[in-house]
Amino acid sequence: MKKINGGICAAKGFKASGMYCGIKTSGTDSQNPDMPHKNDICMYVSDTVCTTAAVYTQNKVKGAPITVTKANLEKSGNKAVAVIANSKNANTCNVDGIEKAEKMCALVADELNIPKEQVVVASTGVIGLVLPIEPVEKAVPLLAQKLDYHGNAEAASAIMTTDTVMKEYAVEFEIGGKICHLGGMAKGSGMIHPNMATTLNFITTDCSISHALLQKTLSDIVKITYNCLSVDGDTSTNDMVCLMANGMAENKTIDCFDENYNTFKAALYEVMANLTKMLAKDGEGATKLIMCEVNGAKNEEESVICAKSVICSPLVKTAMFGADANCGRILGAIGYADIEIDPLKIDVSYISSKGCIDVCKGGYVIPFSEEKAKEILLDDEVTIKVNLNQGSFGITAYGCDLTYDYVKINGDYRS
Amino acid sequence: MKKINGGICAAKGFKASGMYCGIKTSGTDSQNPDMPHKNDICMYVSDTVCTTAAVYTQNKVKGAPITVTKANLEKSGNKAVAVIANSKNANTCNVDGIEKAEKMCALVADELNIPKEQVVVASTGVIGLVLPIEPVEKAVPLLAQKLDYHGNAEAASAIMTTDTVMKEYAVEFEIGGKICHLGGMAKGSGMIHPNMATTLNFITTDCSISHALLQKTLSDIVKITYNCLSVDGDTSTNDMVCLMANGMAENKTIDCFDENYNTFKAALYEVMANLTKMLAKDGEGATKLIMCEVNGAKNEEESVICAKSVICSPLVKTAMFGADANCGRILGAIGYADIEIDPLKIDVSYISSKGCIDVCKGGYVIPFSEEKAKEILLDDEVTIKVNLNQGSFGITAYGCDLTYDYVKINGDYRS
Repeated sequence: MKKINGGICAAKGFKASGMYCGIKTSGTDSQNPDMPHKNDICMYVSDTVCTTAAVYTQNKVKGAPITVTKANLEKSGNKAVAVIANSKNANTCNVDGIEKAEKMCALVADELNIPKEQVVVASTGVIGLVLPIEPVEKAVPLLAQKLDYHGNAEAASAIMTTDTVMKEYAVEFEIGGKICHLGGMAKGSGMIHPNMATTLNFITTDCSISHALLQKTLSDIVKITYNCLSVDGDTSTNDMVCLMANGMAENKTIDCFDENYNTFKAALYEVMANLTKMLAKDGEGATKLIMCEVNGAKNEEESVICAKSVICSPLVKTAMFGADANCGRILGAIGYADIEIDPLKIDVSYISSKGCIDVCKGGYVIPFSEEKAKEILLDDEVTIKVNLNQGSFGITAYGCDLTYDYVKINGDYRS
Repeated sequence: MKKINGGICAAKGFKASGMYCGIKTSGTDSQNPDMPHKNDICMYVSDTVCTTAAVYTQNKVKGAPITVTKANLEKSGNKAVAVIANSKNANTCNVDGIEKAEKMCALVADELNIPKEQVVVASTGVIGLVLPIEPVEKAVPLLAQKLDYHGNAEAASAIMTTDTVMKEYAVEFEIGGKICHLGGMAKGSGMIHPNMATTLNFITTDCSISHALLQKTLSDIVKITYNCLSVDGDTSTNDMVCLMANGMAENKTIDCFDENYNTFKAALYEVMANLTKMLAKDGEGATKLIMCEVNGAKNEEESVICAKSVICSPLVKTAMFGADANCGRILGAIGYADIEIDPLKIDVSYISSKGCIDVCKGGYVIPFSEEKAKEILLDDEVTIKVNLNQGSFGITAYGCDLTYDYVKINGDYRS
């Protein structure tokens, strides 16, 4: 497997486009003052009908696009051809939300001459603001015209909200002698605390695979990637991961748990884990990526709960911002995680490219060099390694530090 | 019932003292640079043996003082005479933690000539730092000498960590013709997210009441006061509420659920609810008190889960800091709370001394005056009123905004 460029256009037969259409009409974009006309809408389309899998937010207050996409994929038997997505407005908690999300699908369907049930729609941005449909109406024909087999970056930039960098990742792999591709794009960077789903993530592949296995792999990998990610503990109303497979690599369709399935699963993990890391590192206001690697848990579920408890703790996050080796906060966060543990078995170390240092053994903080610890924690990627010494399961959770800029960005997001 | 002064010395027969003993030896106190020699240890003592109730943190990583206090009260049959508490060091996750906590009890017991099982010990401060016992050894005789029936403020200031104000509250009430008093002191202001317990809180009363009812009232009131409080979502390892009743008011002992019991319960609620508010308002870096009043829940438990979800949301907290009426974040936080709700029944309003404004009706954000909302949210006490319209239960949860200063205070707490 090798890393390649191309994001959602890395797979054969996927064209994409993005543009600025003026969904937010109140002048310049206060979050990105240097980019007054950043793309705010995008489309991508497969040359052939795709088998499509998706996972959605578990928030009970759901964005209208989530409801409409879910209904479409049910009606179409999990087939999709096109995706339309916008930023700047979540189209959530609005009286006319469903109507507008359906209208977006209808516009795309008419333009591309496809059934509207084969259109996936997604929106991200402010909740509770009526979505202006006129800019979308004007944009759809232009987006269709601009569709390009190298249009991935135009699309990826259009789903950014408070993100500071575009998030794309893609790989190439082989299935039965055929070269396959799988790539994706994602948006962060606040209201990220996935719960059996995640923030907006779009993945495409030219690999041929049955819907049952496509959905199973996606659900399995989400658990150990996006669902192990938290920026701020707030689960969004509009989370979605959509994975489309158009089969244009012409491999023999994967339909059982064989070696080919394992290869596909590894490729999906590679892309989703890397997008997860990018999302964490670009968390709102973040200066560094924090990973918590938990080992020695009794089962996978407990390892996830423990690792997420650590990366979600505001006190751990602020300590990491200050490069302060305050290991008591980590023990505190492990202690209030809803799992059965023996506190007197816990070991904790800090790891980064600058080295590794043990700070807790058997539940007691041990003497360590504060200087060395500081050097390690000043790196921009830090791993907090926890061993519960109670079993053989492990996981890594992804998060970031809590900084002044998080407060600044969110003190007045809407203005 | 009337509000009175006196804190833990409001009740007859309670003497208190506090002083600086140098538990933190590394120079001045960086959190309070203006108070280099702020009190760091205190003691309070009843003239007679007290029936004592307590609740403790549910964090599985527990401070040694919690373990020792629990054991003492078990051995003494829930009787206590004296309390010793220090700040600057939590005596938690240290190999010699239990030994040191027991030593603190022994020092007090020897000095006062009482059984060491009748001593309650509490510590708050940095976790994982060995507690120097010499300053405590030197302090105990001095604290005993300084004991005073008006020493409450000396004690209350000694348990402060990053608190900016002392927290005391007391009331006077009548039981069967006898005047009773009940008062307390508390410390905040970070690592506050109580779970069937709370941060350090000490309450005394001269009312006579059976241990069974004392413990039941305390546990009941904790649920609707401290356990509805969150500053930062981090449950401390050293949380404790200790309630001592010495019976010196000479009322007929309360031992059944009669009118007198209700009066006592109301007094305890009054003191604990007010201390809870003070803790929230003085949350680390906070500029305002945020209350979330949830009504229309199916039961009390769901109302608590919903209200806490709102006041714990970093996005709600930062919006409140910015006085931004971003009601979508409130709906988001209700939606991910672990309760069954119908999103299309939710109403939301903002209330403060500046007025009241409806922002959401039946799950949809409604048009409202941003100007009026801003004025309301700029107040230093704001209530977010939520009606789930699904039942008849309600509760208020207490929290605060998330500000630059929270990050500053916690970026390097230990230095």
